Amino acid sequence: MEVYFDNSATTKPYREVVDAMVEMLTDHYGNPSSLHRMGIHAERAVKEAREIIAKALHVKSKEIFFTSGGTESNNIAIRGAVQANRKRGNHLITSAIEHPSVLNTFKALEEEGYRVSYIPVNKAGVIDLDRLNDELCEDTILVSLMHVNNEIGSIQPIHVIKDMILKKALNALFHVDAVQSFGKLSLLPEKCGIDLLSVSAHKIHGPKGIGALYIKKGTIVKPIVFGGHQEMNIRSGTENVPGIVGFGQAVRLAFQDMEQKVRHIQSIRAALKEKIVSGIKDIYVNGDSETNSAPHILNVSFFGVRAEVLLHALEDKGIFVSTGSACSSNKPSPSHVLQAIGSSKECIDSAIRFSFSEFNTMEEVEYCYNQLNSIVEQLRKYVRR
Amino acid sequence: MEVYFDNSATTKPYREVVDAMVEMLTDHYGNPSSLHRMGIHAERAVKEAREIIAKALHVKSKEIFFTSGGTESNNIAIRGAVQANRKRGNHLITSAIEHPSVLNTFKALEEEGYRVSYIPVNKAGVIDLDRLNDELCEDTILVSLMHVNNEIGSIQPIHVIKDMILKKALNALFHVDAVQSFGKLSLLPEKCGIDLLSVSAHKIHGPKGIGALYIKKGTIVKPIVFGGHQEMNIRSGTENVPGIVGFGQAVRLAFQDMEQKVRHIQSIRAALKEKIVSGIKDIYVNGDSETNSAPHILNVSFFGVRAEVLLHALEDKGIFVSTGSACSSNKPSPSHVLQAIGSSKECIDSAIRFSFSEFNTMEEVEYCYNQLNSIVEQLRKYVRR
Repeated sequence: MEVYFDNSATTKPYREVVDAMVEMLTDHYGNPSSLHRMGIHAERAVKEAREIIAKALHVKSKEIFFTSGGTESNNIAIRGAVQANRKRGNHLITSAIEHPSVLNTFKALEEEGYRVSYIPVNKAGVIDLDRLNDELCEDTILVSLMHVNNEIGSIQPIHVIKDMILKKALNALFHVDAVQSFGKLSLLPEKCGIDLLSVSAHKIHGPKGIGALYIKKGTIVKPIVFGGHQEMNIRSGTENVPGIVGFGQAVRLAFQDMEQKVRHIQSIRAALKEKIVSGIKDIYVNGDSETNSAPHILNVSFFGVRAEVLLHALEDKGIFVSTGSACSSNKPSPSHVLQAIGSSKECIDSAIRFSFSEFNTMEEVEYCYNQLNSIVEQLRKYVRR
Repeated sequence: MEVYFDNSATTKPYREVVDAMVEMLTDHYGNPSSLHRMGIHAERAVKEAREIIAKALHVKSKEIFFTSGGTESNNIAIRGAVQANRKRGNHLITSAIEHPSVLNTFKALEEEGYRVSYIPVNKAGVIDLDRLNDELCEDTILVSLMHVNNEIGSIQPIHVIKDMILKKALNALFHVDAVQSFGKLSLLPEKCGIDLLSVSAHKIHGPKGIGALYIKKGTIVKPIVFGGHQEMNIRSGTENVPGIVGFGQAVRLAFQDMEQKVRHIQSIRAALKEKIVSGIKDIYVNGDSETNSAPHILNVSFFGVRAEVLLHALEDKGIFVSTGSACSSNKPSPSHVLQAIGSSKECIDSAIRFSFSEFNTMEEVEYCYNQLNSIVEQLRKYVRR
């Protein structure tokens, strides 16, 4: 049996996504900038994908810009907004548990002279709202926070945060990294007062190498890549047409009966969690809360077992999971997210992330739990704590 | 009949490229950063593609970095090299006929305080070597020139230029935009003393959305996108695995019997040129020279005929060509390349670019010429000069 429980790292593309990409690669390979019908066909396909994504977010399609992925979306949103608004202030706010594409962009901006506040989080992975409120000021030009954390699945209260920004930092743009929540939790940028929102295709059964950035009409963002002015000059370079079309199809399908799919994913998570909590002792569910956890991420520490050893033992049984996040180019450094929620070293060293998709089944949960139970027992026998 | 003569805008992917991408999308969709075998398989596929590209350029695979395309390769090469070497000097050199991804990056750097020399070109589109020699100095930290021009196919004498740099600008890195020549003309970075070299997949029957940058071992380049340190921190973001694998296959196939393919492409170009020159009056072949033109690009002005009208008339007959380049997001502005080689307004307004691939045939040349001949005649009757 093969069980892919690593859907927050990346997902299996829908068959329809692959088919749509093949059609573009094979029959409609024109350059959208070409004036003839091969170009116009490609341009129209890009337009249709843009409309699908705009519709999913309830925004105008002119507010959607294609990028090469979530990392680039975050980089453009943050650096682009900061550079366009540098005259209005010098202070930036983010959190301690952001994705590396956010944290490392802020670190670079810090080196360039900006003041950056990294808001800490509580045990459940939710940012300290009092601290945020203290830091917000007239000098703040950008607040960038993730909607759902990629390692522990904690959800930030975007509405509450926006209200606080409105009260204390009128110069601040609000960027939300929605890469992990897009297609899982509803988050409408207009309703939530979000100025910039990052999404990615390969987390929702689309292809790798393509993402999008929502930029609210009227928000000025400077490009970080210069060239032929594609994507309204936000992202120059020949459009990745097959990737864009695949992204469009992925969004179309992910948002079809989304609530039903999410309920299914949620039941998968709940079932595995329940089995582990009741069946395996000396475990801890990291960053978990009844009301505030994403439906598709479950992070559990199995004390006394090294996560990497457990990962490979599960792999031997055809079960694919992750230790911490997979986004840091297989560098085995302790998770900054688990550190930020105050986890002990023992807890961090033994943490496994299970992440689910609509393709997972209860049989997989059953199989995974049974393997997990016996592997953990075996490993604990042989490995000293 | 359908005749695709717009191969400098983009090309039809090889069937094997599409098949390889489908395999990665369908069966091997893991994230290369994941530690389990789904990740390792993806990582290995990326490694293999990197080796194919390194081998094609006779360099080490550690010197090849994947990007989202030629535009990003050029941006990283130029901005990354300049930012890493800003302490060594303030002067940059490029030419007047570069691709927008080069020119607009230099314009941005100019606004940031760097001094940029834009070397003019002669009628054949070759840079003024005396002028280059005059501009080169100890303060020069980067020389960035394209190998083959995308609009007229002129070739720059890379060896000669490198010798001049070595004599007068020891602090300068040498970047070559080889997007149009890769897979057509041999250019070995080590042999030519090139420090940075940009290539793209979709110009050689690979997919859009993927490119690569050669960075000579020891050359320091700062990233422009920050994140999870993928691609040795040169380009963070989850790797576009299907794109990378498709790129690898495209390079493998394009470099297979490359000389034979190029001779074929050259014969196509020569045949169409010969027919046009001998059969249609009041034409001019732009930037052409016997010894110094790329095998796959033919740029011809048909005086008295507006290029866009001719393009659409040809399109009606199933023939796809370009007016100037297709890289500027269908903005109809006069070609900066044709302006730089001293073309008249009449010449620029009537310029058509034919660009060829290994898939083109002599029958297509015959058909294209016959259509062209009658359309130009008809249009000239009705359109006043």
